[in-house]
Amino acid sequence: VNEFELIDLFVRGAPRGGEGVVLGIGDDAAVLEPPPGEELVMTVDAVVEGVHFDRSFSPEEIGYKALAVNLSDLAAMGARPLWALCALATRRGERAERLAGVGRGLAACARVHRVALVGGNVTRASELSLTVTVVGAVRPGRALTRAGGQPGDQVLVSGTLGDAAAGRRKGAPRALVERQRRPRPRLALGRALAPLAHAGLDVSDGLLQDLGHLCAAAGLGATVRLEALPLSLAYRRLEGRRRRPLEAALAGGEDYELLVAVPPGRVRRARSLARKVGVRLTAVGELTPTPGLRVVDARGEEYRLRALGHDHLRAPRA
Amino acid sequence: VNEFELIDLFVRGAPRGGEGVVLGIGDDAAVLEPPPGEELVMTVDAVVEGVHFDRSFSPEEIGYKALAVNLSDLAAMGARPLWALCALATRRGERAERLAGVGRGLAACARVHRVALVGGNVTRASELSLTVTVVGAVRPGRALTRAGGQPGDQVLVSGTLGDAAAGRRKGAPRALVERQRRPRPRLALGRALAPLAHAGLDVSDGLLQDLGHLCAAAGLGATVRLEALPLSLAYRRLEGRRRRPLEAALAGGEDYELLVAVPPGRVRRARSLARKVGVRLTAVGELTPTPGLRVVDARGEEYRLRALGHDHLRAPRA
Repeated sequence: VNEFELIDLFVRGAPRGGEGVVLGIGDDAAVLEPPPGEELVMTVDAVVEGVHFDRSFSPEEIGYKALAVNLSDLAAMGARPLWALCALATRRGERAERLAGVGRGLAACARVHRVALVGGNVTRASELSLTVTVVGAVRPGRALTRAGGQPGDQVLVSGTLGDAAAGRRKGAPRALVERQRRPRPRLALGRALAPLAHAGLDVSDGLLQDLGHLCAAAGLGATVRLEALPLSLAYRRLEGRRRRPLEAALAGGEDYELLVAVPPGRVRRARSLARKVGVRLTAVGELTPTPGLRVVDARGEEYRLRALGHDHLRAPRA
Repeated sequence: VNEFELIDLFVRGAPRGGEGVVLGIGDDAAVLEPPPGEELVMTVDAVVEGVHFDRSFSPEEIGYKALAVNLSDLAAMGARPLWALCALATRRGERAERLAGVGRGLAACARVHRVALVGGNVTRASELSLTVTVVGAVRPGRALTRAGGQPGDQVLVSGTLGDAAAGRRKGAPRALVERQRRPRPRLALGRALAPLAHAGLDVSDGLLQDLGHLCAAAGLGATVRLEALPLSLAYRRLEGRRRRPLEAALAGGEDYELLVAVPPGRVRRARSLARKVGVRLTAVGELTPTPGLRVVDARGEEYRLRALGHDHLRAPRA
């Protein structure tokens, strides 16, 4: 297939029109009408073969993940998604059927979250990668940022932690493997929490590293209670046998859960909103006036970490 | 350097604030206020080591080119640029100084064209690449698209053709080499011509291939006059010795000039506007009712082409 046939194959199943799409894929650029009276939220993220996925991923999982990790950033800002652009890089001689599968996965994620694919690009490279840009909308002044945490704020986390990291181990059960392959961007939760949280972000680099970003943005520290970490049953079963069973939950990366700082008086309301969108929200610690992260066990003793988090430049080949 | 130091190094010199930038680089996503009453124009494009640049490029040239080729797409739509996001992929162990140089080149192009760098991403990969997303603004309904050409429209081209392709030859003079390395997005020209042209796009894949896109979008054909092709002196000198001296101008790729279809009665006005922004505009042919491209020489005889254009998937290693 040539460049143009490939683009056609790739975008076939994706929603290409929708809110604000004046001119979609096929020209030099898309023409878009921003929703009146709203601000835009915009981010870019890439998934690369051998770093974010390997040959054990189905083509559909690759495409799905590429868009989902971006939508997680919109969720963390409290935005609703509108549009996506996808730059595909592919090896010479890659099978057209594999690329079509990647396109189908991206399209599936776009349909679930009502995102229009409005632009793209294709180029040759040494390995398969997808670089996705997403645009969302938020009411003016309502975007949830990393800054703004206050001492005493409760640190709440959605869903469960460490599943994606545990899912990378040999013989991991399917439920954990899925977490790494089909991240669930917490879009409804992000929109629900944005008005009442002081600060928030998504946990992509591991709880402690991302909590560190939130603290740094406010000039604060935090205490994390080990026994409060929300863990799935599958995680407990797999990691419970290891010498450091909580490492993956603290620093594993690719959770794509939301982490928010909420003043104590709003925690009940936050949890009730989370229940309404069907997501668990767990208090794992609180913000402290003194910079630095403290992780404490049930006896109040400090836990020493092996590694702080996930470095996308140093991540081991998956 | 780790991921975060690298991002810091990379974005250091770039404009990071400006029109509509509510929250720039550093959070999960940028927050942007679209210019009221305008439409947005948005596109993504990648440059990859070994495809769009090689080791003979300076780091600054790589970064400059990555942004410039994207701005060329905005120029082709008649948009003014606002914001850019850059996803950087880099080999393990790439020298920090090289990456900083790439960032300086990108920043230089951003400063020239007053673009704010509002987001980015960094990941490991097998080769260096930059995937840049740009957003511009245009008055509603005024974006210049590929569709809309009419039979009899004059086909006008900015600047000179084939220089970038000729610049890839061994021993090419610096003036030609530069054309491939520091493309000049025709932003002012695009905005001047958008209100009076029927259709337009930028010449990135070679004149004939891109003219083919413009014709296909209108269901028309075109005649191109060989003797009318605008050629630089350096091009004539280098290519004049070859057996097919016009091949690079017809099909070379990476010209990043504008190609517009203008009704005959507006050609004078178009050329006068082009002069005002300091760019040459040359009529190279016209649109015809019958689909298909005809290239004719000074005697009216048909010229047979070797290849139609540049395929970014099949492009020879630079």
